[in-house]
Amino acid sequence: MKQVIVVNHSLKLPKGKLAAQVAHASVSAFLVAGAQAKQAWLKNGMPKVVLKGESEESLIKLQAQAEGQGIPSQLIEDAGRTVIPEGTITCLGIGPASESELDELTGELKLL
Amino acid sequence: MKQVIVVNHSLKLPKGKLAAQVAHASVSAFLVAGAQAKQAWLKNGMPKVVLKGESEESLIKLQAQAEGQGIPSQLIEDAGRTVIPEGTITCLGIGPASESELDELTGELKLL
Repeated sequence: MKQVIVVNHSLKLPKGKLAAQVAHASVSAFLVAGAQAKQAWLKNGMPKVVLKGESEESLIKLQAQAEGQGIPSQLIEDAGRTVIPEGTITCLGIGPASESELDELTGELKLL
Repeated sequence: MKQVIVVNHSLKLPKGKLAAQVAHASVSAFLVAGAQAKQAWLKNGMPKVVLKGESEESLIKLQAQAEGQGIPSQLIEDAGRTVIPEGTITCLGIGPASESELDELTGELKLL
């Protein structure tokens, strides 16, 4: 079990802002996961990887693919209080889900 | 209600690694919070800030202070699979808790 967070790399967010958005995606995706997936992931030490996504569009497309495979995910929009316009999609949190499923979905993306 | 994540800035972690550690701290601190604090924070949109801590020692000291005030927190140690030695403290997640309590505790720290 692992969790993947794909960031919208086109935004070039400053690192503190980026970290907060990734945390937001991690908590949000965790909360919508099934009870079994949650438990297995927590037992496992909550492994997660942060990957680079190209754009808002690529994150939206990836979420549709995750949905098609039945993997819970959450797109994160920024509240717009600080550096970027309100509603900008910053990240996509996927899982916790099985490594093989996630690798099929995101295996071509690079580590941030 | 908000959550604060203080990072060990002396480590100068690469941004993907940093984001994963901050996410780890956010989920971990959330899980040890009380039910009321959790619910209020989720309703509120999970506000969080990422702050700079000086060193491992300063994070340990801050956790002791949080504990003294009865605020749940979690120190995060790296599993050591990648860029830093196993057991290195990377972050401290504090709360969700009330803004005033957190500001008293961390108000002097700068945003990352």
